[in-house]
Amino acid sequence: MTAWRDADTERMAALLCDYCLDVQPGQQVLVRSTTLAAPLLRALHAALLERDAWPLLRVELPGVEEDFHALARDRQLDAFGSIAEAEAAQADAFLTIQAPFNTRALADADPQRIARLARSRAPLTELRMRKRWCGTLWPTPAGAQQAGMSEDAFAAFVRGALFLDRDDPAAAWRELGAFQARLAERLSAARELRIEAEGTDLTLRVDGRTWVNSDGKRNMPSGEVFTGPLEDSANGTIRFTVPSSPRGVAVEDVELTFRDGEVVAARAARGDEYLQRTLATDAGARRLGEIGIGTNRGIDRPIGAILFDEKIGGTIHLALGRSYPETGGVNQSAVHWDLICDLRDGGRLTADGEVVETHSDAGAFE
Amino acid sequence: MTAWRDADTERMAALLCDYCLDVQPGQQVLVRSTTLAAPLLRALHAALLERDAWPLLRVELPGVEEDFHALARDRQLDAFGSIAEAEAAQADAFLTIQAPFNTRALADADPQRIARLARSRAPLTELRMRKRWCGTLWPTPAGAQQAGMSEDAFAAFVRGALFLDRDDPAAAWRELGAFQARLAERLSAARELRIEAEGTDLTLRVDGRTWVNSDGKRNMPSGEVFTGPLEDSANGTIRFTVPSSPRGVAVEDVELTFRDGEVVAARAARGDEYLQRTLATDAGARRLGEIGIGTNRGIDRPIGAILFDEKIGGTIHLALGRSYPETGGVNQSAVHWDLICDLRDGGRLTADGEVVETHSDAGAFE
Repeated sequence: MTAWRDADTERMAALLCDYCLDVQPGQQVLVRSTTLAAPLLRALHAALLERDAWPLLRVELPGVEEDFHALARDRQLDAFGSIAEAEAAQADAFLTIQAPFNTRALADADPQRIARLARSRAPLTELRMRKRWCGTLWPTPAGAQQAGMSEDAFAAFVRGALFLDRDDPAAAWRELGAFQARLAERLSAARELRIEAEGTDLTLRVDGRTWVNSDGKRNMPSGEVFTGPLEDSANGTIRFTVPSSPRGVAVEDVELTFRDGEVVAARAARGDEYLQRTLATDAGARRLGEIGIGTNRGIDRPIGAILFDEKIGGTIHLALGRSYPETGGVNQSAVHWDLICDLRDGGRLTADGEVVETHSDAGAFE
Repeated sequence: MTAWRDADTERMAALLCDYCLDVQPGQQVLVRSTTLAAPLLRALHAALLERDAWPLLRVELPGVEEDFHALARDRQLDAFGSIAEAEAAQADAFLTIQAPFNTRALADADPQRIARLARSRAPLTELRMRKRWCGTLWPTPAGAQQAGMSEDAFAAFVRGALFLDRDDPAAAWRELGAFQARLAERLSAARELRIEAEGTDLTLRVDGRTWVNSDGKRNMPSGEVFTGPLEDSANGTIRFTVPSSPRGVAVEDVELTFRDGEVVAARAARGDEYLQRTLATDAGARRLGEIGIGTNRGIDRPIGAILFDEKIGGTIHLALGRSYPETGGVNQSAVHWDLICDLRDGGRLTADGEVVETHSDAGAFE
């Protein structure tokens, strides 16, 4: 017995094409994943043809990404080819499906080279961000292992997180979106937020900033509202009790102390070297680019994939580094590292002294 | 024990990059194959990075090509997207690696739709033909089955056909190229060719046409010289005793009778319906676009892949349909179908009455 059925693959493909990307006839849709996502990729290819669009599959083989990081020369690290640019400029929609062979594949890659690559690819990223785009995840054995689950349990977990187990997944996403719209409206009136939990007492300001309702169109799953805090406003200490796995590096129990927006003390029980190196990347890496509130009650525990973990209902996440311009945030950095603080065990979020309910207590999202 | 070793994969990748495509720093190299060629694709990716080029892998998944033929709408059959055009226009070199899951995958596809697709893609094909390009084959279980061999025997056969078993494969190809250059020079002086074998007596004219030395740079393996015969010159009857598998359709024992260049009688012991339908495609489909002479003594039997079969040392092939402009041939058609006549059992090729030795009797190509 397997938890994931062919019908789930079809429903996922339809959700991605219609709810997430709103694919229209004649559009060129670039879909990127690994060979492990073959069933979903084939279903997407068919679904895109049925919608009279152009499916452009970019299928990664085992080992190729690792080889690239190991073998790329200056040219490949610091520039990009004209065909990569044409793709980014001309595609109408982009779908990236995480389907790892090994979630630690880049653990031995040089972070300096990874950062160099991210910097040189920034113009391509900007081109893509102007279009419809979505990131999602396909359950693989490596993903299950990272989550500490069997493959069947992990597939069932992914299905629940994406609402594929609901009668009408798109309707469920619209319902969550409506709840989040109300939450974002309430937060838009706030000046100061305070995060309290064991070992955590941090304040920051969000007045004048825009809260984004992440309703599953760009991240599938989503379940988050976020903004960019005022860059010099964070004060206090926060403990991120949910483990983080940036680029396959295990980092646990990060504690950061901020003064006037800047990190003045930082330590991690595991991965401290990575933490210190990341903070030293550039000036913006020591300031916050994002505060997000997870609302997805279908995600009840971390799986080691930030796409899911930051959406856990009852958590807050802060990102070191680059802010999203649509929030009004202006922090610039090559870094954007989300770190998660769990409020479910006695923690709370207050806005100007008033507790914020970060999830609906009734209805579909319990 | 397996006949194909990792070292063979590395040698094949190096041969393709250097001898076939002459890859230079900064070039964008588009490589197309299926997931079954993963070991070669990974080796090529690394080899291209080592040569400071941009590897662009386009990896096909099982079933996707069949789905495309079944599901494509008018738009996809009659046009192409701007990204496909940008790839064809901007890539510096193209490598296509046959690595079929099933050599009969398109046996049920509608030939009209296949032809429509070929017609609409012709501008892309033309763009690619102006650059360096090469077609090759990677041994797969389906390829072995088509050849009637075990996988090990088939891998060893492919290795021999590509000269990967020689000390210096590129040097072996240069040696065959030099032999073929002399053969092409001798044929350039000919006015009339006559092909004689059991059931075959056909004459055609080649004066004024250019003989192309196919020395392994565009087809790997190659081992062929070819030209386009004068379009109204073929007279007589020819039997193609080597089976043909155009697009996965089995066609055997084709017999064609020509009068002044045009097919006036045609039959096939197997696949006659396909033969008749192909001849009816357009006016050019009833005339010859090519005569080629196979010289590769590493290929001693047909395997059901035209890339190999037309190179068998001691065979002649004629193509119905489109000629290659570089030969001086002017026949136009959506069809280009190579059919092979075996001369090894008492047949012969004469040029203005003189027997043509189509292979060296000494040296590396025995």
